[in-house]
Amino acid sequence: MKKPIQQHFSVPFQYQVHFTRAIFDKNNPLFAHTVKSDLVPKVFFIIDQGVAEAHPNLINQIEAYAEAYKHIFQLCGRSLIVPGGEQSKNTNRYFQQILEATHTFGIDRHSYVVALGGGAVLDMAGFASAVAHRGIRHIRIPTTVLSQNDSGVGVKNGINSFGKKNFLGTFAPPFAVINDVAFLTTLDDRDWRAGISEAIKVALIKDASFFQWIEKQASSLASRQMEPMETLIYRCAEMHLEHIASGDPFEMGSSRPLDFGHWAAHKLEQLTAYQIRHGEAVTIGMALDATYSYLKNMLSAEELHRIVQLMKTLGFDLYVPELSNQEVLNGLDEFREHLGGELTIMLLNAIGQGVEVHEMDKHLLQEAISKLKKFQEADLKV
Amino acid sequence: MKKPIQQHFSVPFQYQVHFTRAIFDKNNPLFAHTVKSDLVPKVFFIIDQGVAEAHPNLINQIEAYAEAYKHIFQLCGRSLIVPGGEQSKNTNRYFQQILEATHTFGIDRHSYVVALGGGAVLDMAGFASAVAHRGIRHIRIPTTVLSQNDSGVGVKNGINSFGKKNFLGTFAPPFAVINDVAFLTTLDDRDWRAGISEAIKVALIKDASFFQWIEKQASSLASRQMEPMETLIYRCAEMHLEHIASGDPFEMGSSRPLDFGHWAAHKLEQLTAYQIRHGEAVTIGMALDATYSYLKNMLSAEELHRIVQLMKTLGFDLYVPELSNQEVLNGLDEFREHLGGELTIMLLNAIGQGVEVHEMDKHLLQEAISKLKKFQEADLKV
Repeated sequence: MKKPIQQHFSVPFQYQVHFTRAIFDKNNPLFAHTVKSDLVPKVFFIIDQGVAEAHPNLINQIEAYAEAYKHIFQLCGRSLIVPGGEQSKNTNRYFQQILEATHTFGIDRHSYVVALGGGAVLDMAGFASAVAHRGIRHIRIPTTVLSQNDSGVGVKNGINSFGKKNFLGTFAPPFAVINDVAFLTTLDDRDWRAGISEAIKVALIKDASFFQWIEKQASSLASRQMEPMETLIYRCAEMHLEHIASGDPFEMGSSRPLDFGHWAAHKLEQLTAYQIRHGEAVTIGMALDATYSYLKNMLSAEELHRIVQLMKTLGFDLYVPELSNQEVLNGLDEFREHLGGELTIMLLNAIGQGVEVHEMDKHLLQEAISKLKKFQEADLKV
Repeated sequence: MKKPIQQHFSVPFQYQVHFTRAIFDKNNPLFAHTVKSDLVPKVFFIIDQGVAEAHPNLINQIEAYAEAYKHIFQLCGRSLIVPGGEQSKNTNRYFQQILEATHTFGIDRHSYVVALGGGAVLDMAGFASAVAHRGIRHIRIPTTVLSQNDSGVGVKNGINSFGKKNFLGTFAPPFAVINDVAFLTTLDDRDWRAGISEAIKVALIKDASFFQWIEKQASSLASRQMEPMETLIYRCAEMHLEHIASGDPFEMGSSRPLDFGHWAAHKLEQLTAYQIRHGEAVTIGMALDATYSYLKNMLSAEELHRIVQLMKTLGFDLYVPELSNQEVLNGLDEFREHLGGELTIMLLNAIGQGVEVHEMDKHLLQEAISKLKKFQEADLKV
């Protein structure tokens, strides 16, 4: 028999994450510069309904901007408005609408599909962009804290299917990401707060001094001051991007160190029918795994106290009734299935120091859940 | 404003393309070795109906093989049998069936989805494997000449949608490819022949001495001798893999040098409702673009004659009535849309020497089509 042929190659990816204010102000050339090429490319917009409602002038602004820069790019039809939040991912309806538009407008691999909205809309639109013509250039304009500092700047996309979160999706780096701070002003308090969870996450597993900084800024963040929020988003996005670039960008191994707090979070989102925000669920998930780390004698009582104190100061709940549902523990098995292979869970040895384990004691988890219930009832004593 | 963050990273990919005979003979450990890992992974099979019919014992053999190697891997349910050829890609029905099985059997990112069949079935199954859980390990067992030497060893997958070929798909390297020569013995003559087209293609654009070799072996190949076919497949697969690794594996630029003859081929497949094989269409497409190259004074009359002579000796048609349909020329625009950006077409300066151009003269193309009609009517005089 002929000898096997060994195939190997590397594919380089690059993109910029921009920070701006008032992206569709005609005096702001950033968007036009981003799509500029030898041709006059087609650009198709998908817009989160919640953002369109909070910014009633947005669509007009985009159309006026496109008119002003028509020598640089060409708008395709009207923007597609899709419901925000998990609704946009729970069906393949909006995903199909984007594919249909791609077909109708003859959008090609050098055209742009631009998604503007929260993380769920970006995930869904990113998946459609990744599979139409095997990948159309995709620009993300994240409008929430969470999407600006985490999901929107990364390489994953997806929709939910068979009741499983992100059951369908790909790893596909965007063409560019543009974070516009102006969208943060109209967020409701829950969304403002929920996005801070990913910053707490990266701080807890990697950067004790960032954690200290968040502790100092906690009251300013809780009272919606923009300057510390911009700094928080920048640092969190930067750490998230570093993590992707230095590790295993397409997660071909089993390790998922950035998924701290996520196994229970995914399950809680499901059990509450997505009534709690992803960031709210992640905070509870982190509080759970931090408490478990304490019960396992890995994390000190004092550090656990600082963690739950910070969450409280920011206004997070540490417990919801669904956390006591037996189903939550099945989340471990589903998480293992999603990772593939061995279960890998991040716990804490200290603030700023995550550590991976491959099993969890369900009895101790029950105990941790009871403790969270007490913390929630204002008893922060560890 | 804060300065942009520049993200860049490279993702390494690797896989082996194996050559074997009787892959599910219990004495052949290759398949078991390929899926072997620390765990006992789940393996789910998708099988081309045409192959199952030509090899009525195949499913039993796979089950017996799995039984013999049950300490190494675990078969998931029954194999999924799907129709062969373009039927499997023209609807999302079979694609959905694979996703459903993935969900039902709890197939994770360390499990294997194995597709056995012709190129269309591999494309469809590869796409499903690429998007479930953002990518499950996918093993291809190509059973036709074409899929063993070209599509099955590469990184593309896809299904047709909105009447457009491969409208949906991704670039996703397989976990491994296993070419089993035993499947070639039951191919009908058209499939045996059609697969030779991709070897002619790579020879024409890159390797004059390979073209000469094919010319010498033409009668043996036409009379279905296996030894020259194995050599042809190996060399063609090798060149295809080299091209992917040394170029732009995920086709992020505009250039698609391996698409010689393909713009008209895609259109002909559509216009004949996939009644002609991909390889048959590619041969006509190459004959067309070679003749056009001659009319453009790029290729000599003698070389054009050798090309059409080889195609004839192998038993290929050089013309079908659909080629005279005005729609064919629209194929140029659709090809440009699929590539994105500028039109890029490969023509020939000589045998073994492709050259890219960015426009085609439609009047001259009509003339080339008339010439092909004459060639087909046995008048090979250039």
